[in-house]
Amino acid sequence: MMRRVIKKDKLALLGGPKTIDEKAGRGLKCAWAGKGLEQALCEYTGAKYARCVSSGTAALISSLFAAGVGPGDEVLTVAFTWVATPGAVLRCNAVPIFVDVDPKTLTMDVADLRRKITPQTKAILPVDFYGHPAPIPEIMEVAEKHGLLVIEDACQASTAEINGAKVGNIAHMTAFSWSGKPIYSSVGGGAYLTNDRRLFESALLAGQHPTVIQGLATDPDVLRYASMGGTGDNMRAVGGDAMAQLLDAEVRTAARICNCEFLTGKLKDIPGITPPYVRPGYRHVYHYYTCLWDPAVHGVSRDRFCEALNAEGLAVVAYVQDANHYFAPESKPIQAGGPCHLRTVFQERNLYGKGCPFLCPHVKNPPVYRKGDLPVSEETTLREFCIMQRDISPPCDERDMQLIVDAIKKVVDNIDLLRA
Amino acid sequence: MMRRVIKKDKLALLGGPKTIDEKAGRGLKCAWAGKGLEQALCEYTGAKYARCVSSGTAALISSLFAAGVGPGDEVLTVAFTWVATPGAVLRCNAVPIFVDVDPKTLTMDVADLRRKITPQTKAILPVDFYGHPAPIPEIMEVAEKHGLLVIEDACQASTAEINGAKVGNIAHMTAFSWSGKPIYSSVGGGAYLTNDRRLFESALLAGQHPTVIQGLATDPDVLRYASMGGTGDNMRAVGGDAMAQLLDAEVRTAARICNCEFLTGKLKDIPGITPPYVRPGYRHVYHYYTCLWDPAVHGVSRDRFCEALNAEGLAVVAYVQDANHYFAPESKPIQAGGPCHLRTVFQERNLYGKGCPFLCPHVKNPPVYRKGDLPVSEETTLREFCIMQRDISPPCDERDMQLIVDAIKKVVDNIDLLRA
Repeated sequence: MMRRVIKKDKLALLGGPKTIDEKAGRGLKCAWAGKGLEQALCEYTGAKYARCVSSGTAALISSLFAAGVGPGDEVLTVAFTWVATPGAVLRCNAVPIFVDVDPKTLTMDVADLRRKITPQTKAILPVDFYGHPAPIPEIMEVAEKHGLLVIEDACQASTAEINGAKVGNIAHMTAFSWSGKPIYSSVGGGAYLTNDRRLFESALLAGQHPTVIQGLATDPDVLRYASMGGTGDNMRAVGGDAMAQLLDAEVRTAARICNCEFLTGKLKDIPGITPPYVRPGYRHVYHYYTCLWDPAVHGVSRDRFCEALNAEGLAVVAYVQDANHYFAPESKPIQAGGPCHLRTVFQERNLYGKGCPFLCPHVKNPPVYRKGDLPVSEETTLREFCIMQRDISPPCDERDMQLIVDAIKKVVDNIDLLRA
Repeated sequence: MMRRVIKKDKLALLGGPKTIDEKAGRGLKCAWAGKGLEQALCEYTGAKYARCVSSGTAALISSLFAAGVGPGDEVLTVAFTWVATPGAVLRCNAVPIFVDVDPKTLTMDVADLRRKITPQTKAILPVDFYGHPAPIPEIMEVAEKHGLLVIEDACQASTAEINGAKVGNIAHMTAFSWSGKPIYSSVGGGAYLTNDRRLFESALLAGQHPTVIQGLATDPDVLRYASMGGTGDNMRAVGGDAMAQLLDAEVRTAARICNCEFLTGKLKDIPGITPPYVRPGYRHVYHYYTCLWDPAVHGVSRDRFCEALNAEGLAVVAYVQDANHYFAPESKPIQAGGPCHLRTVFQERNLYGKGCPFLCPHVKNPPVYRKGDLPVSEETTLREFCIMQRDISPPCDERDMQLIVDAIKKVVDNIDLLRA
């Protein structure tokens, strides 16, 4: 019930009754997604700090920004990845320097990483591609030797582990994504995790609301920037429903691993197919189940082989080559031109105009991105084919996996017909 | 029911039965928010093209990027605004040049705009602050004379009109936001609108998924960049539930205007208070109901006056000064230090490191942001107090408005007690 003011009431400020006290809960409310999720992520991974943001990309950008990555800096990363990885580096006005991948795990090659460190290197950004963790312990060793920060792009690997430690609690900072990933939300979203309070707070400045920064930060160097809300971007958390997912992420992941091990057992002896490798001690969580096709064995290209599988009703995708066209079910492959370093943005080196950030006057050695630079990445792009998470996750079970095997076997058994 | 493969079936590719054909609809699905909303926005505003993105900020960034705004460019905008406006300019590595505001409408002062155009000016970014449209027709005239593009920050004014034309269909590009705005969604989001196909397509490159760009763009210059997904950001649409809001946006807006006109009628004769001005022909949609307090009339500061109103149960906010702390209901004011040009980012001019973008070698005349540069913006920041949209929107009606009037009158009647 509403209460009308009586003229001789005392000011509420001075102890009188409030004029208006029954409007609470009416009208618009602000949406606060992800609050409980942050705590849950810390408990799940063991990391001290987690912050939910608008996407995995936003988590990467926030982490790089916290690491002080900016104009003239080089960030060592991979080209055999989703576009958001090098994109986040460009977003900080820094330049990606690409490291090749290991031909078995398809993640960063540590020997090549060592070769590419320069005085301009500011951070290392390895990717847990397809759900298999990059060799973070070795990369951390290299980083510590050179005083660099490691930001782990775990967007596809939010339930993975290395030697019993949860991804999210290994590198200096870790980025997760909820967009169709092992922990997912219906509307996207993501989070960054770290054990370092200073990095946690600095990352807020990449694009959080002033009041969020004000509420979470304690560092005066961060607080004095709160009033602008960081770099002008808005990375407000979405995907609060990832919380429900997190609760059964372990069950889903274990079931998917079980399905994938069944597949690998059945596919490993089929000529021309190499099932995914899993490094001992590493928990591959299979965001995609990625095999390599050897076109030489049967004289049939990967694309023709995939065409036949798709016709059988088995959705397979050449993830890197086609720029993940299965994101939109009705879309067509893009023909991206190869791994990231061969795409237009890196060939033309003029993203923001005037050559920014590649030819920025602060860049000491403007990088040139050439075909042949990354032999494993380039060859793998032409050989890989991926079965999507939805088709290897529960409720799919062994019967469904057998159907996948049957489809692949049928095509291989009839491979002669595909040659003409 | 599932169907097991029979060995002698023909390949599906060659006309045989599919191995797997009953998995549709199982497992993960991609979320496609905002599809119907885009069409509805076009129909509602009359604009030819609309694209839903992750926030109003993302809509601004996309629009500026489409306008070719980049390193070394100057964008004319206002400092009496929310941080996302100049933030979006910085995000494109360009520099904001601030124009003062008109003391009545609190939107861009066209005379000051004319004075600040230089050969480096690339675009004009006026703001429909608090829901009152900026003088877009006059600004368009200035822009056309100088060959500039006008991007209207209508984040707070998504149902406004100028001379019968809907905002969204007046400037070259327009940015909307759904975060607690006249058209709102529970999870944020926004959209950009334009009648120019080339601008519509180019804006996709600011941060859409490669397959989205591939699916929507027709311009070969845009398509060749599709494989990188634009500038490395992820601006995926959220806020599909804004659709439901759009359907009754007109009703809600009309009811809110009616409430505000009631308030203005009652407040206009109270000494020390100037209710919001509405320019003839302009539809002010009152994202906030913003009055000016004259501290000289009663010898009581705006902040003390607001403290007394808040104590009465009337939530009022010094929006610009406090960096909108009411976004988080439990938060405290930030004391932003004034309109945007006086905040840390602009005083220190080192957002991305190495002075980027302010002191970029491509910037011909690095701007210096000084106190006194924008007298109306600076003075208004110390005088304005805002009643929030939730308290002036339906279901609130005339009885609620009378309570607001009563609270204000009670405080003014007792103003002597606030002086000590």
